Amino acid sequence: MTDIFEIDTPAVLIDVDRVEANLRRAQDYADQHGLKLRPHIKTHKLPRFAKRAMDLGAIGITVQKLGEAEVMADAGISEIFLPYNILGQAKLKRLRALAERVHISVTADSVETVEGLSAAFADAPEPLSVFVECDTGMGRCGVQSPQAALDLAQRIAAAPGLRFGGLMTYPAAGQVAANAQWLEQAKDLLTQAGLAPPTISNGGSPDIWRAHEVQVATEHRPGTYIYMDRFQVAKGVGALEDCALTVLATVVSRPTEHRAIIDAGSKALTSDLLGMTGHGLIEAYPEAVIVGLSEEHGTIDLSACSKKPKIGEKLRIIPNHACVVSNLFETVHLIVRDQLVETVPVAARGRVD
Amino acid sequence: MTDIFEIDTPAVLIDVDRVEANLRRAQDYADQHGLKLRPHIKTHKLPRFAKRAMDLGAIGITVQKLGEAEVMADAGISEIFLPYNILGQAKLKRLRALAERVHISVTADSVETVEGLSAAFADAPEPLSVFVECDTGMGRCGVQSPQAALDLAQRIAAAPGLRFGGLMTYPAAGQVAANAQWLEQAKDLLTQAGLAPPTISNGGSPDIWRAHEVQVATEHRPGTYIYMDRFQVAKGVGALEDCALTVLATVVSRPTEHRAIIDAGSKALTSDLLGMTGHGLIEAYPEAVIVGLSEEHGTIDLSACSKKPKIGEKLRIIPNHACVVSNLFETVHLIVRDQLVETVPVAARGRVD
Repeated sequence: MTDIFEIDTPAVLIDVDRVEANLRRAQDYADQHGLKLRPHIKTHKLPRFAKRAMDLGAIGITVQKLGEAEVMADAGISEIFLPYNILGQAKLKRLRALAERVHISVTADSVETVEGLSAAFADAPEPLSVFVECDTGMGRCGVQSPQAALDLAQRIAAAPGLRFGGLMTYPAAGQVAANAQWLEQAKDLLTQAGLAPPTISNGGSPDIWRAHEVQVATEHRPGTYIYMDRFQVAKGVGALEDCALTVLATVVSRPTEHRAIIDAGSKALTSDLLGMTGHGLIEAYPEAVIVGLSEEHGTIDLSACSKKPKIGEKLRIIPNHACVVSNLFETVHLIVRDQLVETVPVAARGRVD
Repeated sequence: MTDIFEIDTPAVLIDVDRVEANLRRAQDYADQHGLKLRPHIKTHKLPRFAKRAMDLGAIGITVQKLGEAEVMADAGISEIFLPYNILGQAKLKRLRALAERVHISVTADSVETVEGLSAAFADAPEPLSVFVECDTGMGRCGVQSPQAALDLAQRIAAAPGLRFGGLMTYPAAGQVAANAQWLEQAKDLLTQAGLAPPTISNGGSPDIWRAHEVQVATEHRPGTYIYMDRFQVAKGVGALEDCALTVLATVVSRPTEHRAIIDAGSKALTSDLLGMTGHGLIEAYPEAVIVGLSEEHGTIDLSACSKKPKIGEKLRIIPNHACVVSNLFETVHLIVRDQLVETVPVAARGRVD
């Protein structure tokens, strides 16, 4: 067995017991409330964790890119939701090829997307399931009103090669009631029009423990919940003890009494601040503040620390945002307590398209 | 020939004519001022551009990670500067192996680093060249005073297996005079002590055109100058017409009159703001503001635009920070004007250690 502090840095450590606990906690919650889970794999990008979530009861997985779907399909996962407007011949061809080997569904929020999908699937053996993406408050993609959701659902239902799959939203964090109300109105409108949505898919980790309040939703797509991170802890979604992903870094310089430099910069931790102060939490020195990152250096202010780290000392850091860290490393180290169990490639890392 | 707007998105386009002009401009400037160039490859991570810079007169290259040095050595580059404190058995072993096939030099800013290097190179056939890293104002790594530079230089000179290479700084942008003064004092002190620095290595693109004002420096290590980016343009280092790297993205949604969503988010553009407003400049819609990024979505405010992009339209974006974009893509597309010339792997991408 290898002690984790013998691993060369910077490196990503994944505590598999915490992963298991986080997956189980969410599945138990969903089961209690009669909600289905369709976890987003963007956080871990590892087929094994996608499969483990399904073994525990998840009904499928969510991905954000065709490239991620292809990796997961190659790994044997056959129920995939890709909530994105797929446009252009190159991507439509890949989607069509995927649909011939797994059950894949997508979203649309415009006539243009629906027309492209329909042209690509008009002669397909099975219709493609297309959800209407709804902007219930996030201000990103999505139709802007329940009426617009109905209009687009009718387009989908009428389009050759397509089947209306339901409604999908990625809601604004904290706006649970407004999200629920939007979806309820849309469901009523569609049902009255004879187009009851087979599935209503809600998402996000920030409000995962309030997912049951959106009673109209039939499923939830959490992502970050599997690893948690400093942001989710700040939002009260989990505790520090639930954080499964840490970045291991080495103190490479102690230029002044109050400054330490580590070998994890924005290429390891990313510059995502998400409104917080500092670029991560150092477990052994919680008073330390990671005040700045350049690509290969992290600058730490130790002025609030009673004890201070030495040159060569290795530190475990809970990053602000776990998902983006997964995307930067070719491999991650699976650990149990302080021991390395296995080093695995991040199979769906860097799938940009 | 393929038109660049036929390339699937998101994708990175590199205008090779602009690269050539940027390399030549910097080399001409250096030649005029009797300064040597040792360009940093972190920006492009491509052996071909490292070699091209050397063909034009650069005396070697700079890298920030052992993994980058290994890639460049494999590609046949034999003069490599790694300005970093290399610590720990795993890395020291790799450094020793590299030193047996190329000329590599490193930096140190502490006795701990010097002792580790000395232990690893005590029985090496050739001594390792070690520079003293100086904190001349940046507030990152580096000894804190010219006297401390002398003390550490003496340690290096006396250490078995090591040779004192000179002084190195990555200065604070804009603080040219203070940087020069620090280095001059250190040079005088070391010279008086019989340890005249063979090389004084200054760095950075932000002050590249003022590098000659730091007369004490013998060489300069610019990085971003090869591609330029929105930040360098904001700092006046180059013009928009010099920017060689653009991200090609597709408008995937137009949910409202004033909002567009593109398929380039933080996984393509990174969240680096560098103090600016917006996450990049859209060439065809300069009034548009990329107001937010999630991992796979960029949210654009079009309210200041007279004409507005359509769904499916492809946009070229000059990112805030080119270096970090290079690190996110497995391949980049080399272009001449609007035509694709070649798609190449980013050989030194993702070398985290």
